[in-house]
Amino acid sequence: MNAAPTTFQARDPNFKQRVRDSFARQHVMAFLGATLGEVSPGYCRIELPYRPELSQQHGFFHGGIVGTIADSAAGYAGFSLMPFDASVLTVEYKLNIVAPADGDRLVARGRVIRPGRTLVITEANVFAVKDQQERHCAVLLQTLMCMNKRPDTAPPAPERVNTR
Amino acid sequence: MNAAPTTFQARDPNFKQRVRDSFARQHVMAFLGATLGEVSPGYCRIELPYRPELSQQHGFFHGGIVGTIADSAAGYAGFSLMPFDASVLTVEYKLNIVAPADGDRLVARGRVIRPGRTLVITEANVFAVKDQQERHCAVLLQTLMCMNKRPDTAPPAPERVNTR
Amino acid sequence: MNAAPTTFQARDPNFKQRVRDSFARQHVMAFLGATLGEVSPGYCRIELPYRPELSQQHGFFHGGIVGTIADSAAGYAGFSLMPFDASVLTVEYKLNIVAPADGDRLVARGRVIRPGRTLVITEANVFAVKDQQERHCAVLLQTLMCMNKRPDTAPPAPERVNTR
Amino acid sequence: MNAAPTTFQARDPNFKQRVRDSFARQHVMAFLGATLGEVSPGYCRIELPYRPELSQQHGFFHGGIVGTIADSAAGYAGFSLMPFDASVLTVEYKLNIVAPADGDRLVARGRVIRPGRTLVITEANVFAVKDQQERHCAVLLQTLMCMNKRPDTAPPAPERVNTR
Repeated sequence: MNAAPTTFQARDPNFKQRVRDSFARQHVMAFLGATLGEVSPGYCRIELPYRPELSQQHGFFHGGIVGTIADSAAGYAGFSLMPFDASVLTVEYKLNIVAPADGDRLVARGRVIRPGRTLVITEANVFAVKDQQERHCAVLLQTLMCMNKRPDTAPPAPERVNTR
Repeated sequence: MNAAPTTFQARDPNFKQRVRDSFARQHVMAFLGATLGEVSPGYCRIELPYRPELSQQHGFFHGGIVGTIADSAAGYAGFSLMPFDASVLTVEYKLNIVAPADGDRLVARGRVIRPGRTLVITEANVFAVKDQQERHCAVLLQTLMCMNKRPDTAPPAPERVNTR
Repeated sequence: MNAAPTTFQARDPNFKQRVRDSFARQHVMAFLGATLGEVSPGYCRIELPYRPELSQQHGFFHGGIVGTIADSAAGYAGFSLMPFDASVLTVEYKLNIVAPADGDRLVARGRVIRPGRTLVITEANVFAVKDQQERHCAVLLQTLMCMNKRPDTAPPAPERVNTR
Repeated sequence: MNAAPTTFQARDPNFKQRVRDSFARQHVMAFLGATLGEVSPGYCRIELPYRPELSQQHGFFHGGIVGTIADSAAGYAGFSLMPFDASVLTVEYKLNIVAPADGDRLVARGRVIRPGRTLVITEANVFAVKDQQERHCAVLLQTLMCMNKRPDTAPPAPERVNTR
């Protein structure tokens, strides 16, 4: 939001790779077709091309899908500032859909508003790109929890896969 | 929420079929594997079996996917009470993830809190089912807009499909 | 929300007095004219009689005042379950105003949805009472933080008072 | 939020006076001691000096009071863009408290994110001023409803006053 812009410094010099590795473990991102763009301290961009499989009943991106990439963009903005051996959990988010998500692709830009030791407050803005024009379609306000001393690299969960 | 429970009456006697038809047009539901369960006046249940493709980095359902079925369950709870020639838009929702969405499937139950002529306030509770036990994992509070005289049956958008 | 109702047990046998003492330290409650009603484990009721000084431009209770008592009712519902030497902070809340807050008094009922060790998720419903009829006017969904080992009894802040 | 900044134009040339008149009718503002600062198209600032009567249990501004002036600042930002014969209702807001509201006064700055004909999406940032330094303490994301053809000048409600 339009608070004075803040510049953050990442405590973990390896934060970009750490974000990329975690993003790759979020299987839903590949499933939807989302890709990770720029990552900088307290900032993360995610893009998602349109596919009819992502649509609601009027043919636009479903609001939940808009929320999904906004949640991840804001979440990784926060994760970029966390210690190397921490993991991140979404506590809650609120999404306002300010225009139909009507475009060839979505761009979600996440930013940290306030980095606390335990809780990190973030935001994301989502834009629908149509005819190479960005149109603001959603805004998200989010609370993250930093799980210290619990690295993000969860062990595989084969029993999950096996039960299917 | 725990306000005195209210019984609603649907104005459109055909509301169940109308909800089912609209759900079928939300292509993202089939893509995720979600199915529509009970629909009654002001109430809607959606279920979603686990697949690794829906997971976040720790192997649980991604919070955005939890939000997606909660958004639709609450949205169709509201839609069930709308006039036959209206369509529904999500204005905004807030999702609290109260426990990891760790289970074989999710069950989202949407309910109307307050049905207004233009705005309808709804909620949804999401449960993760594991070993046949339901565990409450998320709560959603949502605002819908009723678009009167704009039937939900949007024309197909073939140009969208063609551009892929 | 309409999740299966849960019964909670307070860890601190003195929780009622602890809530009452903290409520008395929230000077804004006396200033507005709010009173504390029933307190039970995971539940708290606050009432507020109408005064023109609490109104918005149409003469109803101001939405922020509705939010203030809902925030405290939900906050003390959560506080009732916290350890004796903890204090409580509101992380965030969302308030939907579902009808004008038009009445002789407001009744806010707060309840715990999920009591975690660090984070507690709560809700509140606010009712406007007019002609002895309760009308549901607002619903709040809230995240609290439990500050362990930091008792609620803050030292007085005389320098604050002196600067006025 | 950090979407591309937008410049708005007010449809009603008399918008500043209209906002000031409505603010004066919100009796709770005078009761709390809040004053209206700058008003421009899609923007509104409200200030509130500290008084112990506004405090929560630790002596800081109560979160509900922070929400009250944020709600009004964002609400009047939206109202500034509405037609001369419309009134404004808060549909819902979400407030994140990102730091204790510890200061000699609060400054709330409301801005319009998206002005629709019926719904207007706004935000507010609240700062606590201490030793002449502003510190960001809260962010609000809000949905307003524009009530067309229903002027804000509600008739007095003497029966309200009389029942006290």
